[in-house]
Amino acid sequence: MPRILLSIAYVGTHYCGWQIQAGASRRPQPTIQGMLESIVSKVVGTHIRVHGSGRTDSGVHADAQMAHFDVPESKVTIDWQRALNAQLPDDIAVFEAKQVPDDFHVRYSATGKIYTYRLWLSRRYTPPTRFPYVWACGPVDVSRMDEAAQSLLGTYDCACFQNVGTNIKGGTERTIRRIERIPKTAIATGDQPVELAWEFEANGFLKQMVRNLVGLLVACGREKISVTEIPQLIASKNRSLLPPTAPAKGLTMTRVQY
Amino acid sequence: MPRILLSIAYVGTHYCGWQIQAGASRRPQPTIQGMLESIVSKVVGTHIRVHGSGRTDSGVHADAQMAHFDVPESKVTIDWQRALNAQLPDDIAVFEAKQVPDDFHVRYSATGKIYTYRLWLSRRYTPPTRFPYVWACGPVDVSRMDEAAQSLLGTYDCACFQNVGTNIKGGTERTIRRIERIPKTAIATGDQPVELAWEFEANGFLKQMVRNLVGLLVACGREKISVTEIPQLIASKNRSLLPPTAPAKGLTMTRVQY
Repeated sequence: MPRILLSIAYVGTHYCGWQIQAGASRRPQPTIQGMLESIVSKVVGTHIRVHGSGRTDSGVHADAQMAHFDVPESKVTIDWQRALNAQLPDDIAVFEAKQVPDDFHVRYSATGKIYTYRLWLSRRYTPPTRFPYVWACGPVDVSRMDEAAQSLLGTYDCACFQNVGTNIKGGTERTIRRIERIPKTAIATGDQPVELAWEFEANGFLKQMVRNLVGLLVACGREKISVTEIPQLIASKNRSLLPPTAPAKGLTMTRVQY
Repeated sequence: MPRILLSIAYVGTHYCGWQIQAGASRRPQPTIQGMLESIVSKVVGTHIRVHGSGRTDSGVHADAQMAHFDVPESKVTIDWQRALNAQLPDDIAVFEAKQVPDDFHVRYSATGKIYTYRLWLSRRYTPPTRFPYVWACGPVDVSRMDEAAQSLLGTYDCACFQNVGTNIKGGTERTIRRIERIPKTAIATGDQPVELAWEFEANGFLKQMVRNLVGLLVACGREKISVTEIPQLIASKNRSLLPPTAPAKGLTMTRVQY
């Protein structure tokens, strides 16, 4: 059956993440995948599974989550962007829909992913327009975070950044290719309100890995953890030795690489 | 009594505008002024009136609404920014609070105001992060809008831009000093999704004046109205001859000038 690829943006605030929640629930929780599947299935007239490039946690946003689904030949000429956007709520939007080869798989074909995490560095106030998209962590030493970020690059066992209770096939080694602060030049001084973002690029991420990396970076920026301690934390493979996971709302899935 | 000046940002989506609704209502409607007055009054221990630089309509946002209130001498040393932000909801934030001279009045001392109106020029989708802040008007001819904007500058009777049922003291003449497109260089081509903003600066605005100016600009951009017709529309002083008022959610109060 022909395969349709979607690029999807969403504000995750009001969703229980990407993935349809398994098992019977007394109160069904809205998910991005669930919203898409129900609309695609309605348009096609039979249940259609929508595959995502990866899960996003409850409250995490996406600028470009990728998803695919297979439709009968008779439905391939539908203007899928229009059909979906007409029925999707305002906090989910399809910004591209196109047919792809049947052997393209949104998850297995991915060669890497980019996530962005945003911090707001003042405790005095958070702009209401930015509140849903930042962690208002307060003042941090940005140069320490820069130094810590460099020490996290490379290919190694990332088990210490994986939240407990997860079961990942294929092991816990990942290659972190890039951790980049944006803007590169801005440094927070004193209590000056500043929004900074960090982009994380890797061949793949474990569950809550970006949020755990950010938790560690911010702990370094708060001088709770020294950059020199990072190698032994990684070697421990023990999540419980790390600082708390950073809040979901600061995180956005930015790009899937193919 | 000492006077405290506030700079306030808010997302207006969930509020019935700035002003406390007069008269008994079966279901009280939340307003920005109402939220502020209830918190200030609670902190002081008696009812305190909060004055705004001007009303914003239901659904209109603010980057920098200005407000003042008078407090007993004993309350002037309170950290008002902290006290208010601790109790305000996430969609309202005080980003500055300071004492000002008793003869400073947030409305009467204002010499001008700047509003920003944002358009999204694709009908194919609106990014979920931008949805609350733009009018997704679809494709427009931006050069026609630029030309129309220039013809709206100057000092004249703006009655045609004032929504009916309003009663403004001091007449309907206003000086529109500046209507500027941001970014200045971007031109929408075809169905390319583009967000554009227009800044409106005047010595004051009538009720829904910016939204009516935008309605006219977009009608010019859609080639429903010719720029050459604008002088006679203004001369008519008749709101009902103009195109529909632009939606509230695209509008943000940007700055009050003193």
